[in-house]
Amino acid sequence: MQALVLEEKGRLSLREFPLPREPGPDDVRIAVDTVGICGSDVHYYPHGHIGPFVVREPMVLGHEAAGTVLEVGARVRGLAPGDRVCMEPGVPDPTSRAAKLGIYNVDPAVRFWATPPVHGCLTPEVIHPASYAYRLPETVSFAEGAMVEPFAIGMQAAVRARIRPGDVAAVTGAGPIGMMVALAALAGGCARVIVSDMARPKLDIIGTYDGVETVDIRERPLADYVAESTGGWGADVVFESSGAARAILDLPRLVRPGGAVVLVGMPVDPVPVDIVGLQAKEARIETVFRYANIYDRAINLIASGRIDLKPLISGTFPFADSVAAFDRAVEARPTDVKLQIDLTAG
Amino acid sequence: MQALVLEEKGRLSLREFPLPREPGPDDVRIAVDTVGICGSDVHYYPHGHIGPFVVREPMVLGHEAAGTVLEVGARVRGLAPGDRVCMEPGVPDPTSRAAKLGIYNVDPAVRFWATPPVHGCLTPEVIHPASYAYRLPETVSFAEGAMVEPFAIGMQAAVRARIRPGDVAAVTGAGPIGMMVALAALAGGCARVIVSDMARPKLDIIGTYDGVETVDIRERPLADYVAESTGGWGADVVFESSGAARAILDLPRLVRPGGAVVLVGMPVDPVPVDIVGLQAKEARIETVFRYANIYDRAINLIASGRIDLKPLISGTFPFADSVAAFDRAVEARPTDVKLQIDLTAG
Amino acid sequence: MQALVLEEKGRLSLREFPLPREPGPDDVRIAVDTVGICGSDVHYYPHGHIGPFVVREPMVLGHEAAGTVLEVGARVRGLAPGDRVCMEPGVPDPTSRAAKLGIYNVDPAVRFWATPPVHGCLTPEVIHPASYAYRLPETVSFAEGAMVEPFAIGMQAAVRARIRPGDVAAVTGAGPIGMMVALAALAGGCARVIVSDMARPKLDIIGTYDGVETVDIRERPLADYVAESTGGWGADVVFESSGAARAILDLPRLVRPGGAVVLVGMPVDPVPVDIVGLQAKEARIETVFRYANIYDRAINLIASGRIDLKPLISGTFPFADSVAAFDRAVEARPTDVKLQIDLTAG
Amino acid sequence: MQALVLEEKGRLSLREFPLPREPGPDDVRIAVDTVGICGSDVHYYPHGHIGPFVVREPMVLGHEAAGTVLEVGARVRGLAPGDRVCMEPGVPDPTSRAAKLGIYNVDPAVRFWATPPVHGCLTPEVIHPASYAYRLPETVSFAEGAMVEPFAIGMQAAVRARIRPGDVAAVTGAGPIGMMVALAALAGGCARVIVSDMARPKLDIIGTYDGVETVDIRERPLADYVAESTGGWGADVVFESSGAARAILDLPRLVRPGGAVVLVGMPVDPVPVDIVGLQAKEARIETVFRYANIYDRAINLIASGRIDLKPLISGTFPFADSVAAFDRAVEARPTDVKLQIDLTAG
Repeated sequence: MQALVLEEKGRLSLREFPLPREPGPDDVRIAVDTVGICGSDVHYYPHGHIGPFVVREPMVLGHEAAGTVLEVGARVRGLAPGDRVCMEPGVPDPTSRAAKLGIYNVDPAVRFWATPPVHGCLTPEVIHPASYAYRLPETVSFAEGAMVEPFAIGMQAAVRARIRPGDVAAVTGAGPIGMMVALAALAGGCARVIVSDMARPKLDIIGTYDGVETVDIRERPLADYVAESTGGWGADVVFESSGAARAILDLPRLVRPGGAVVLVGMPVDPVPVDIVGLQAKEARIETVFRYANIYDRAINLIASGRIDLKPLISGTFPFADSVAAFDRAVEARPTDVKLQIDLTAG
Repeated sequence: MQALVLEEKGRLSLREFPLPREPGPDDVRIAVDTVGICGSDVHYYPHGHIGPFVVREPMVLGHEAAGTVLEVGARVRGLAPGDRVCMEPGVPDPTSRAAKLGIYNVDPAVRFWATPPVHGCLTPEVIHPASYAYRLPETVSFAEGAMVEPFAIGMQAAVRARIRPGDVAAVTGAGPIGMMVALAALAGGCARVIVSDMARPKLDIIGTYDGVETVDIRERPLADYVAESTGGWGADVVFESSGAARAILDLPRLVRPGGAVVLVGMPVDPVPVDIVGLQAKEARIETVFRYANIYDRAINLIASGRIDLKPLISGTFPFADSVAAFDRAVEARPTDVKLQIDLTAG
Repeated sequence: MQALVLEEKGRLSLREFPLPREPGPDDVRIAVDTVGICGSDVHYYPHGHIGPFVVREPMVLGHEAAGTVLEVGARVRGLAPGDRVCMEPGVPDPTSRAAKLGIYNVDPAVRFWATPPVHGCLTPEVIHPASYAYRLPETVSFAEGAMVEPFAIGMQAAVRARIRPGDVAAVTGAGPIGMMVALAALAGGCARVIVSDMARPKLDIIGTYDGVETVDIRERPLADYVAESTGGWGADVVFESSGAARAILDLPRLVRPGGAVVLVGMPVDPVPVDIVGLQAKEARIETVFRYANIYDRAINLIASGRIDLKPLISGTFPFADSVAAFDRAVEARPTDVKLQIDLTAG
Repeated sequence: MQALVLEEKGRLSLREFPLPREPGPDDVRIAVDTVGICGSDVHYYPHGHIGPFVVREPMVLGHEAAGTVLEVGARVRGLAPGDRVCMEPGVPDPTSRAAKLGIYNVDPAVRFWATPPVHGCLTPEVIHPASYAYRLPETVSFAEGAMVEPFAIGMQAAVRARIRPGDVAAVTGAGPIGMMVALAALAGGCARVIVSDMARPKLDIIGTYDGVETVDIRERPLADYVAESTGGWGADVVFESSGAARAILDLPRLVRPGGAVVLVGMPVDPVPVDIVGLQAKEARIETVFRYANIYDRAINLIASGRIDLKPLISGTFPFADSVAAFDRAVEARPTDVKLQIDLTAG
């Protein structure tokens, strides 16, 4: 089967690659339709590693996928050939201590697509456990199905925030994840979501959504805007989505007394945190790691029209042009939110 | 000052009535603009009591109000004459044990407008503690401001439900409170809200909102609809808003394993509950009593346009026609959701 | 292998019975040492059913067990032959929706020992999934290990109560489960646990624990005692462990404003609940169904000496006398809390 | 009246000082019996400030107090002359936004004893709002009553941790606050509390409590001990009570997947935090600021004997020797946990 293979740091090729073809009794075989390109895929390409995860052997990329079930294993119930699905890329050991607790995302034994040494899904067919494939309603396209993975990260942040209806949220950073967080915060009940960045094109994109207010931090500090627009009280929830040291240090100035901070951005190294400042607000700080038990609720929101992710799909490439798609992704154009690859296109 | 007075069971009059005129140091004096008519007001009128609360002396009615600040007490900060506000009708002893815990709604010492022996607000001017008057943004009309009180009940239910984004909710009963609950559930992050009733006109009204599905229980059981539309799993949250014994007995058939039930409807007498059925689902059951710390977040949602309560205002009467307005409310037309009285109208 | 078999309603025999002998790759084979007799075992014996669960074929009884690992399957890690363990009797489908959420106790596919048609563990050897066998520290005896199962029910109630340190709890009913709940409430941080019953011998047993106060409801109403000893405020948490209609109706009189009720007792039929009374307190009501993710924390508490379950073991019978043990259990002597069977005794 | 006055940085005197003598309608007048010396009092003495709080005028010290009610204001209910009480030193504006939410500790308007410019309680009589004075049961001595304040900090940490019964906790730092946190964690349901420090005398004191394990970090890293004693899983809750940069950087190595960190220690400046490490565990991080709604539950635990604070009282001085007591406190002997001043002693 063809696959998009990261041969080594800096070298991609679309070529034949041997992958498993037979589903086990709890698995399904899926014809992959659409795969989104994620920042992590893009990072592996020129760098060959993300932190401790090093690409040592050729590895198939891709983990944001939707497709059609072709075959189901003997014990599979609830899915049948022809079902349109999207796939959760991380699969835990279901008997692990973390999985038993319902927090399977932090199971150390998770195998996650396109995280060395596990191959990804940029290939026409994949084998996947049925319980990590989620049926798409008719109203949800494959392109939207492939957006569920990045949206799930925003949703995990929104769930852990424990938003109360009518909360005011601030989101620092309008990259793809910041945008997903902002939309999940809105979907999750926030009355207002204030998004800050220093890249105007990104703010323009997310600012088109009702309920989103944008702050260009080259023009004014986010803390000033939040204070002014909340009568000096602060935001109920702050989603730190930039990973920037300056934003992290400023968190106590954003959050209201008794409010919550959700750390979504991932600064490479330890960064200074104003602990006393956060204590003076008695803030709760949540961290997120991927997601668990989110796919079905994310699909519900997309299917019911409560959230529209389509405006965030900036371009679609045929499978044959996958390398070009990745080269474009590496450019990181500020007007590009999500690029996708269509495996069914000529 | 003129006031709408319930003289005794069955007898209303609009007449001069002596009420306090001077704000204390923490109070504001407010020109009342709009007052909504609530089911409890309507109940006192022909019955003269609600449970243990008996009207023994002539009592001014009304507790859903918005108006304009005329004068502020010496210690008041944050409000000034001319501010448009809506008022929370229940005022606790701020030093009580419940108030210190933040659950001032269940302070036994709460004084609540139009609950004997406390007078209501159907009069051109009222004195009220400043900390229970909430400024209305320019985009929120007085009519909407007077809707905050009933919406706050729905919001309290939504807060206590601890909705997670993308939840599926069921609401039993499409009376005014059921409608408020449905809208609060949507605003609070539900992907789908399934509302049931046996009165088609009510379902037609609430069914116009995106995200609301309606079930006429004369045609099919709600439990069947929920099961079918959730793959047999059940609703994440069930808001019991009918107070009907049959609906309460059926709750275990509606809720998913590990889901939540919020008891909003108030059955007059104890009713049978299928405890073992709820245990088999390990359901959490929340009760609500009015609201606390809700007004600001309700106003946020209205102001940001995330929720539109205007379609639920079914008619507006001038103050001079207050008795007629109450007589219409007593009719309980299925097409009437909320009737309001405009104290500024000729 | 020998096993204690419920042949049919009312007829027990200790006889040879064919049971699986080979562990699968994720299983362990365990030499059973001690098995406690549970109220459910005792109920099946004369009645032949519990609600919809009917004994249609001869069934091995017993589900409260501890023993020694004899053999481990190929994929098992973390357990080895010779390890002393206690076993969680309910095993879910680990890929089910409930299991993925961490609430595997409410997975409809759970297979639970001695619940028809699943055989129990009153036999010298059992096969069990390794992930539902928990190692016992040296300081915890097999007899205590076999007490983990009933204690886990109390612990589940304590976890769902979300006790805050220093809470005052009331427990209605001092049967074996009520006692377990009371001890779990103490272990979980309650300052005081008030236990009521009408059987003095039971109150005398649980009353020996520090922190437990007892109320004989033939002498005074529990509600009076709670009110008096909390300055009229009520209990922070009420654990309803009697299943009695009267106790359930009285719940609003016991719980403080904003407090919690945990429904542990299982009334056979729907019973009247004073919903308006609970709403006036804005009580949260939790239900429990067995337990999930409790065994390790229960063992921690026993091992560290924070809880001592040994005084609740009222008698131990050799395996050969199992039928006599069950006949004694059916007597339901008020001084008997837990009877156990020792499979290693002559 | 006599009072212990910090005249200026470095200079204490016991002298006549004018203080209010008349209770308002909601106040009580209290004869102070015992006052504990807190680290913050001790810090003001040689330094003259704590962060932004600067002693600019002579200020009475002391905020950990118990005494006897002498007189009650006109509206006071629930307290009477002769009642023995302990006093919560921080009093909010009860109508503030934070106070209405029940988080009155983070009300910016809080007035806190011995925090400039508010005078403390090291004087024979004080006026205090009745709702911040808590009756002591007969079994609780004044000395214990004066321990409620520091214990309340530990309790606040335990409450915010949301301990589940049987949790394993780690506490970094065995200063007075670390000890209070350890005891609150035990009282709150932890099965095991692992306390680390580099001062052996402190570990010896806290190690005398059942359930406490101690780790001298000069001998072995705490992370190694936690990993070894939890099978590599980590602690359910980590209470950071040292404020030390090294301990804070190591937090991801201590906490289990999905566990909680409570930041109690107050590092003077921003310190590096390993955010990615905490995200990989998806840890929840709570901060604490003093306490709210804790006094009654702390008193409950002391009164019921579930916690014994008496071993932590290292010395008691008569009021006349207050300056000597403070000089001893400044020495910070490792064997001194809490020094107290007895205002009734000769």
